[in-house]
Amino acid sequence: MTIKNVCINIARLKNNIEELGQFGKNDKGGLDRTTFTPSELEARDWLKKQLHALKLAIRVDQAANIWAKRVGQEGNLPCIAFGSHIDTVPNGGKYDGALGVLIALEVMRVLEENQISTRHPLELVSFSAEEPNPFGLSTFGSRAITKKLKKEDIENVTDSEGTKLTDALKNAGGDPENFEKAVRNPNELSAFLEVHIEQGKRLLNRSIPVGVVTAITGIYREEISVYGEANHAGTTLMEDRKDALSASSEIILALESISRNHPSNEVVGTIGKLDVFPNAPNIIPDKVNMVLEIRGSTSSDIDEVLHELNRCLVKINKSRPIRIERKVILNQSPAPMDESVVQTIQKSAESLNYPSYMLGSMAGHDATHMASLTKSGMLFVPSLEGKSHCPEEESRMDDIEIVANVLLHSILSLDKELDS
Amino acid sequence: MTIKNVCINIARLKNNIEELGQFGKNDKGGLDRTTFTPSELEARDWLKKQLHALKLAIRVDQAANIWAKRVGQEGNLPCIAFGSHIDTVPNGGKYDGALGVLIALEVMRVLEENQISTRHPLELVSFSAEEPNPFGLSTFGSRAITKKLKKEDIENVTDSEGTKLTDALKNAGGDPENFEKAVRNPNELSAFLEVHIEQGKRLLNRSIPVGVVTAITGIYREEISVYGEANHAGTTLMEDRKDALSASSEIILALESISRNHPSNEVVGTIGKLDVFPNAPNIIPDKVNMVLEIRGSTSSDIDEVLHELNRCLVKINKSRPIRIERKVILNQSPAPMDESVVQTIQKSAESLNYPSYMLGSMAGHDATHMASLTKSGMLFVPSLEGKSHCPEEESRMDDIEIVANVLLHSILSLDKELDS
Repeated sequence: MTIKNVCINIARLKNNIEELGQFGKNDKGGLDRTTFTPSELEARDWLKKQLHALKLAIRVDQAANIWAKRVGQEGNLPCIAFGSHIDTVPNGGKYDGALGVLIALEVMRVLEENQISTRHPLELVSFSAEEPNPFGLSTFGSRAITKKLKKEDIENVTDSEGTKLTDALKNAGGDPENFEKAVRNPNELSAFLEVHIEQGKRLLNRSIPVGVVTAITGIYREEISVYGEANHAGTTLMEDRKDALSASSEIILALESISRNHPSNEVVGTIGKLDVFPNAPNIIPDKVNMVLEIRGSTSSDIDEVLHELNRCLVKINKSRPIRIERKVILNQSPAPMDESVVQTIQKSAESLNYPSYMLGSMAGHDATHMASLTKSGMLFVPSLEGKSHCPEEESRMDDIEIVANVLLHSILSLDKELDS
Repeated sequence: MTIKNVCINIARLKNNIEELGQFGKNDKGGLDRTTFTPSELEARDWLKKQLHALKLAIRVDQAANIWAKRVGQEGNLPCIAFGSHIDTVPNGGKYDGALGVLIALEVMRVLEENQISTRHPLELVSFSAEEPNPFGLSTFGSRAITKKLKKEDIENVTDSEGTKLTDALKNAGGDPENFEKAVRNPNELSAFLEVHIEQGKRLLNRSIPVGVVTAITGIYREEISVYGEANHAGTTLMEDRKDALSASSEIILALESISRNHPSNEVVGTIGKLDVFPNAPNIIPDKVNMVLEIRGSTSSDIDEVLHELNRCLVKINKSRPIRIERKVILNQSPAPMDESVVQTIQKSAESLNYPSYMLGSMAGHDATHMASLTKSGMLFVPSLEGKSHCPEEESRMDDIEIVANVLLHSILSLDKELDS
């Protein structure tokens, strides 16, 4: 068998998807595998067992990222890394994140089976806490190794029940005391590749199995608190009200309208989290807390939405006797992928006779941060109905097989092409 | 001292307001004295101790209402009852409900001190669970004695933590097994009077100390569930969204606008309770549960708002790919007060040289239900800034003294006037 004909074993990969998909399964058929919860820790153990069976050198770093290294022929070359994450959103699906890790695992297995040795060392990585979590820190692992998350950022962080992040991290095998030792030096890495589900419909609508990501969306989030005045819902005449929920409704609809009307259809605005206080049927709400999110493939797109939103908030504030407080909690710039890596992925798909499509990623990924450290690229698998972050999230095995093979051959091509 | 000069002791009443106001006090200065909670049970014990000291015949009925009877000269006459409730909303104030019970207590005390004996027996009543509570049954006690709440309505009712209402009721001294024995026969009662804070600004704005209620507002409540589709907040383009929260925002603003534009300013519409699911920053909400409330002083006012709202909901449902489910949970008709009782209260105020003002009650009260059982009337005390259901809820002692004296003399007048 020539290297060109090496391919992954889809039956084995499918089996692993099902096996890992048991951890955190709830009665709605979704996965509750939030980072550092018991079911996520079980999933980590399962993964480590698989990596161990492949005789890879396993390392859990200070941020509890799991690394598994395969030696290369040329000891002085930096490694080619690939992987994703295995935590999920509440009631999420079994493909988001997990697929990228399982394809990476399958690639390692195929190389081992076929006794293919590469020039560069290879490293599989499973990043900690990519998804939003009760500690309020998403893409935790990739931000830790790229120095974007520092020791002081994780100290004194607790979830709503008072559990300390540092304790949860320790429990998962991390080391909060020496957190900054998780940082990787750019000269340790040649490239990073991540496979992920698209979580949209663009590939599906075009019947193209391989997505090659050109840039990852910027994500801007702020906490907005609207303060009104609690009062009796019967005796307070309409004109005397300071209703925090009505004002918030105007904000929600303003964001929706601005995002809809923006010329780029890659601009989206969402309010997904909202809490009302005191939240009783006969009391006018005196406070609403919400998290507002804007995404766009360029910084100027995001700024345009924000500018319009500011105008609307001033107007709402003027027309209603309420007070609005805003706090930026995330401001992540769009991250372009490395051009040479993008080309290598495209050519690998072409050489295997699979059509590919270039697209921006509307979701944030660990690759966003890895792009600041090394040449990075992403491959997308089509998502059925574009669904993700829900139990119905699914990708076809045919597409998964194709993308896994493109990843395998992209790694082998990069291994040939890159001399550092 | 002639009966005409008998008056209540405001220092003693003030002291009782402060004493009862300690039960359930939280660190925000408000009262957490939801029905059947430990602090509400302590307040009940305090009240029973006061009634006991007055040598009244205390009875806790099957609905845990507290009754205290003073004998009359004519044993065959039905009693004149008066009182209110001592439970509060979460973080409520010390006047809503409690004031009506404490003034009733003061009236009993003054009659005793002055050795005034009435023709009719008198009964003080402190009703159970007037406010909305975790069991979802407000005006619990007054609905129980007027046959509006039946044994089957309280069976299998639990709070969100699974506590059974029947257990909580038993714990407060009630008897769920014999619940329907709490019902009072119309021929046992001559009249019912309730003093309450206005919870609005109409008396205050007019500088009038005594409000004489003509009718109690109708209250209509429904649970609305809006179903959309959970999806990734980044990868789902604006036009592909089924956002349950945006649709709900339209409903909130529609209700506000309809209520504002209704010609009667006694029409109000509120959404005070709203919960978002799954409530994560990067997931488009797939479900919103809310409680919608409409109040008006006539049934046709409420129907007009509902009619307009129905039209809006059809429109929202057409323009958005969401589904709306509605369930009526309360439909309480407006309750007119008894004309002769209203006149007696007015005349009593006049004879004491206090100005009074006739107004509709925009809040529901136990008197709503008592009006279906006996001749009923209500007296309002001005609320500072119109505030209620909050720690800042307050009424002036001068006003309280005046209304308490009007109640005392209204009872004495009714005792003379009524021959049944």
